[in-house]
Amino acid sequence: MLLILTLKMVKFALIENRTMKKKPLILVTNDDGITAPGIRTLIAVMAEIGDVVVVAPDSPQSGMGHAITVNNTLYLNKVSKENATITEYNCSGTPVDCVKLAVHEILKQKPDLCVSGINHGSNSSINVIYSGTMSAAVEAGIEGIPAIGFSLADFNWNADFEATKPFVKKIAEQVLANKLPDGTVLNVNFPKLKQEEIKGIKICRQAKALWMEKFDKRKTPYGKDYFWLSGEFVNQDKGEDTDEFALANGYISVVPVQFDMTAHHAIQQLNTWDF
Amino acid sequence: MLLILTLKMVKFALIENRTMKKKPLILVTNDDGITAPGIRTLIAVMAEIGDVVVVAPDSPQSGMGHAITVNNTLYLNKVSKENATITEYNCSGTPVDCVKLAVHEILKQKPDLCVSGINHGSNSSINVIYSGTMSAAVEAGIEGIPAIGFSLADFNWNADFEATKPFVKKIAEQVLANKLPDGTVLNVNFPKLKQEEIKGIKICRQAKALWMEKFDKRKTPYGKDYFWLSGEFVNQDKGEDTDEFALANGYISVVPVQFDMTAHHAIQQLNTWDF
Repeated sequence: MLLILTLKMVKFALIENRTMKKKPLILVTNDDGITAPGIRTLIAVMAEIGDVVVVAPDSPQSGMGHAITVNNTLYLNKVSKENATITEYNCSGTPVDCVKLAVHEILKQKPDLCVSGINHGSNSSINVIYSGTMSAAVEAGIEGIPAIGFSLADFNWNADFEATKPFVKKIAEQVLANKLPDGTVLNVNFPKLKQEEIKGIKICRQAKALWMEKFDKRKTPYGKDYFWLSGEFVNQDKGEDTDEFALANGYISVVPVQFDMTAHHAIQQLNTWDF
Repeated sequence: MLLILTLKMVKFALIENRTMKKKPLILVTNDDGITAPGIRTLIAVMAEIGDVVVVAPDSPQSGMGHAITVNNTLYLNKVSKENATITEYNCSGTPVDCVKLAVHEILKQKPDLCVSGINHGSNSSINVIYSGTMSAAVEAGIEGIPAIGFSLADFNWNADFEATKPFVKKIAEQVLANKLPDGTVLNVNFPKLKQEEIKGIKICRQAKALWMEKFDKRKTPYGKDYFWLSGEFVNQDKGEDTDEFALANGYISVVPVQFDMTAHHAIQQLNTWDF
């Protein structure tokens, strides 16, 4: 009896030891491109908690949403040196293409975590749907990989990501430790504040908002009209449980995002229609 | 007293008459491009129930998801003749760009309905998230326009859209008559069947499914590796209330789709985490 117990304890200790020693495999991507300062911050933080592989676009892919490359070729280039501790690839495709290629061509296994960002600019509220950063995280989620998209409310290429670091680490560690609820990924947005000014982390819902478009109409040197998309962000939602409210009040917003887009609450009503 | 009542009745009859006479303004778009047979079918059906304006991509935009053009120019060309009953524009951008340009540059008012499609190929289940057809409808929904995406489970350019016609009309009329529940648009998919084989319309939820990617690795004439995205659709959801089940059993699937991507059910669980 004592012997069995001892053997069990040794076995448990061995398993425990191996589990503790094995670092999580972390896939890092973004939509601003592999050279963006935001992804460099994310890579540095992830290297503290796991084995990191980077597969990110070779050029900016902002606003690409959940686009995939179906009618064109995809290129993948290993850009890290042979003896580098972190393996990096750039890809000619969209952020979603990067995740698909990473999982099925490079890693050939599911990573323990996929992180995307840190985006130069907020992806709160309705921006989640246009965002390449968040679509990469959502794609990982569809493939059953715990995933987080990180964004900082500062579009500047030289944005200061320093304040985000301890929170990025904390949130990634919590996702690794707790796993995410089935069918969800996280949309994390940071206010543009110094570390000591950040009040904490708030779990939120997506605020109801939209972009009021204003197209800038111009003429080419040859006299042909063309347009630039611009516009104004309009928040129609004053709820104190929203991501917009959290960010405006000095908090980091964390929204659980799902990819079941069914409006379940509308099914009953539609069943009363005359089809 | 009698006179006042009679005057009121006359006034009411006049308003009623005008309301009945005013045809709804319908915006038509798609992701297969303005020359696709699918959009031609949709235009023909919409012309029976309203005043139609077409703004559709000048080239195929399949798999563009909710991509928008933020770092590039947009071109818009009127392609219908001056005396045509239906005004048509092609656009160099994505399906979502088409909707934005249509509403803010061409119509300068909200249309009564936006229809997208008819897509050559199914957009059921998880395809809703990759689909340019559905993203155009979702964009209209974000802008407060009742919207429907239509797709036929036949990728062929010469797919036969004839059987879809009476159902497309019926569904569009129902949306115009009943309005859609707030924050939702419809994802309508047709099985590849003859009209007499279609069993009816089913209100469904999005089936849980994913694409198992298989990249086709090839070499350019210059010896460089490149990839083509391919893959196999895997339905992990046998629910009889899903769109996949409806389509497999001869029904047209109608899924109400929302663009609040918050996983509301996950908020409570995340609040127990150690942040």
